Amino acid sequence: MRVTVSRKAHFNAAHRLHRADWKAAQNEAVFGKCSNEHYHGHNYELIVHVTGSIDPITGYVMDIKVLRDLIKSEVEDAFDHKNLNVQVPEFQNLIPTAENIVVVIYNKLRPHLDTSQDLEVVLYETPRNFVKYAGE
Amino acid sequence: MRVTVSRKAHFNAAHRLHRADWKAAQNEAVFGKCSNEHYHGHNYELIVHVTGSIDPITGYVMDIKVLRDLIKSEVEDAFDHKNLNVQVPEFQNLIPTAENIVVVIYNKLRPHLDTSQDLEVVLYETPRNFVKYAGE
Amino acid sequence: MRVTVSRKAHFNAAHRLHRADWKAAQNEAVFGKCSNEHYHGHNYELIVHVTGSIDPITGYVMDIKVLRDLIKSEVEDAFDHKNLNVQVPEFQNLIPTAENIVVVIYNKLRPHLDTSQDLEVVLYETPRNFVKYAGE
Amino acid sequence: MRVTVSRKAHFNAAHRLHRADWKAAQNEAVFGKCSNEHYHGHNYELIVHVTGSIDPITGYVMDIKVLRDLIKSEVEDAFDHKNLNVQVPEFQNLIPTAENIVVVIYNKLRPHLDTSQDLEVVLYETPRNFVKYAGE
Amino acid sequence: MRVTVSRKAHFNAAHRLHRADWKAAQNEAVFGKCSNEHYHGHNYELIVHVTGSIDPITGYVMDIKVLRDLIKSEVEDAFDHKNLNVQVPEFQNLIPTAENIVVVIYNKLRPHLDTSQDLEVVLYETPRNFVKYAGE
Amino acid sequence: MRVTVSRKAHFNAAHRLHRADWKAAQNEAVFGKCSNEHYHGHNYELIVHVTGSIDPITGYVMDIKVLRDLIKSEVEDAFDHKNLNVQVPEFQNLIPTAENIVVVIYNKLRPHLDTSQDLEVVLYETPRNFVKYAGE
Repeated sequence: MRVTVSRKAHFNAAHRLHRADWKAAQNEAVFGKCSNEHYHGHNYELIVHVTGSIDPITGYVMDIKVLRDLIKSEVEDAFDHKNLNVQVPEFQNLIPTAENIVVVIYNKLRPHLDTSQDLEVVLYETPRNFVKYAGE
Repeated sequence: MRVTVSRKAHFNAAHRLHRADWKAAQNEAVFGKCSNEHYHGHNYELIVHVTGSIDPITGYVMDIKVLRDLIKSEVEDAFDHKNLNVQVPEFQNLIPTAENIVVVIYNKLRPHLDTSQDLEVVLYETPRNFVKYAGE
Repeated sequence: MRVTVSRKAHFNAAHRLHRADWKAAQNEAVFGKCSNEHYHGHNYELIVHVTGSIDPITGYVMDIKVLRDLIKSEVEDAFDHKNLNVQVPEFQNLIPTAENIVVVIYNKLRPHLDTSQDLEVVLYETPRNFVKYAGE
Repeated sequence: MRVTVSRKAHFNAAHRLHRADWKAAQNEAVFGKCSNEHYHGHNYELIVHVTGSIDPITGYVMDIKVLRDLIKSEVEDAFDHKNLNVQVPEFQNLIPTAENIVVVIYNKLRPHLDTSQDLEVVLYETPRNFVKYAGE
Repeated sequence: MRVTVSRKAHFNAAHRLHRADWKAAQNEAVFGKCSNEHYHGHNYELIVHVTGSIDPITGYVMDIKVLRDLIKSEVEDAFDHKNLNVQVPEFQNLIPTAENIVVVIYNKLRPHLDTSQDLEVVLYETPRNFVKYAGE
Repeated sequence: MRVTVSRKAHFNAAHRLHRADWKAAQNEAVFGKCSNEHYHGHNYELIVHVTGSIDPITGYVMDIKVLRDLIKSEVEDAFDHKNLNVQVPEFQNLIPTAENIVVVIYNKLRPHLDTSQDLEVVLYETPRNFVKYAGE
């Protein structure tokens, strides 16, 4: 009997999409206004899904307060009010597209969960654009 | 060609998380303010997903009005404006965590659906905390 | 040049609507299932609007962090995961209808704001039912 | 490493549910007020999910601008501010239930995606009623 | 001490914007695709605000169940799943723009409220376009 | 008979809150992590309300397409995917707090509206923090 427990969180950050090994014109052609050299930013909305068995003693798959605190320490404290390109080590050599961010978040959270539990992460870059990663 | 038909519903209820076989301190340690002896409550938002084949005559997987009425009779009439711990039989010996509630709802709806159809139930306890169960 | 600064917050609580000086039948007739003796509950969503002049030094009408903390200490800490009828002093002799709750919240916040600032409070009892009070 | 990229879009359209080979009474019995001969309408909200590998050069599964433009040309331009029964060829002989519409949208989008990518389409007919199709 | 009580409701309807005394080209020039002769439609979201004094006996400005039923009988039953141009008498000689619809709804509700109460009506034609009328 | 017509829009931008005439410690004390020298960003959601009389010929207070295009040319084209501090002239000597941004937007839109019409602008910096300005 596997149930999924989900928690929404959010963080605000600046970023830009560009490759240092490309000229400005190529960055502009591929990434458009997202390559603006002075950055732009988003209110990222995050949903973390953890799937596992219900503990018959507590009725919990996972204490949602523990999940909330894990998201805070691993994601919000690391990303909130930061410039992803400049201030977050994972994106020193990785373009902070929504796709790459969601994989980085997954990889930061995964080691803290029980191996019997499944993890899926959804990241909204805007209310209309979002991505999902489940580690496969 | 299997399509999922989904319906949102809601109910308002009181509950508390505690075990009668635990002392107050242990309940407080595990369940925190959710163990408040005088109860607290939520606007539960419910999403019921039914997956099946499209009937070529009607273009329906399932008449959404039938699904709406089923949710009303099985869930809303049973849970809305109730104290889950005190007034809902399924929680007499089961802690009404979101996880346990979603499983109870699944088990109440499942017998009313065709065996060829799949069921998945999502329950929001708050806008940021929610659970999902698909019967496996 | 007056600008309104707004902050959303929320709390979860149990309540019931009834008058001790009425018989059960009269309470049932007036308040319906909201008078359930075992309580029910809601995820209350709160919006606090403060209107005032922009401070030319900071560009703030009011530091939103200060407003957030004020809402936490005056409202969330007092109401969250509580039974309003039993555990919140303001409702010992006042029915906790949404109307009365929004006035109580207004009265708790008003003394903490500058007299040059206007206050308006909106309270959602459910996503479809809400109330507003501005102190007049 | 497969990631899902999602895009929300919308269109407004009129429709009715009825079968020309049924009498009015039968249409009314099965489709209720949805069979109103003068039509009614909806703000359809659409979510398109595309799952594939991240391109290591761009960090994209798919350029979301390309997906946005594809949805516009294939779905919005074809359906927005249209009467689905009268003006959209796919529904000349197919009842425009939400289930049938989501399958039509899937079939219009599928040929434009790489065969290595998976497609799932979600369609909200109202905020409480929605459907999903993934081509199986 | 005046408090506003608000209720959200909704209805789905078809409409078109056109003047019979204009040629098609002029209708097209002014109303664009909204003038489509075969109609299109919307999920109209409605918010009704009633402002008045709190009854000290009940703690209500107005029983929200009474307001809900009033909206149902006056608005939902009259407009839901209807073609506004063809089937709703108020729009026989009045273009069903959002502006005109919100005034019609106001005028239908106003006589049912106490003269000491204020009424304001908000109507969402789409999630991004909406109108408001308060009778002045 | 004055009706309000409203349009939602959005833009994504980077910003930081700081005063060049203050030392870093003072900026940090007043603006906290919002003063991060490498910027952070937001998905700004914008609501523009225009109040005026209904034109009896068209049934419009203002053609919502005209309002949409005005918001695009005056606000979205100027702010979207920009660094407000560095790339938007209005904030060269004005801290881009939400309060100051909403006043700037008001001042950019006001000259394009008829003097008989009222304007109110709401700006969401995050889903929980927002501001409003009506030109007084």
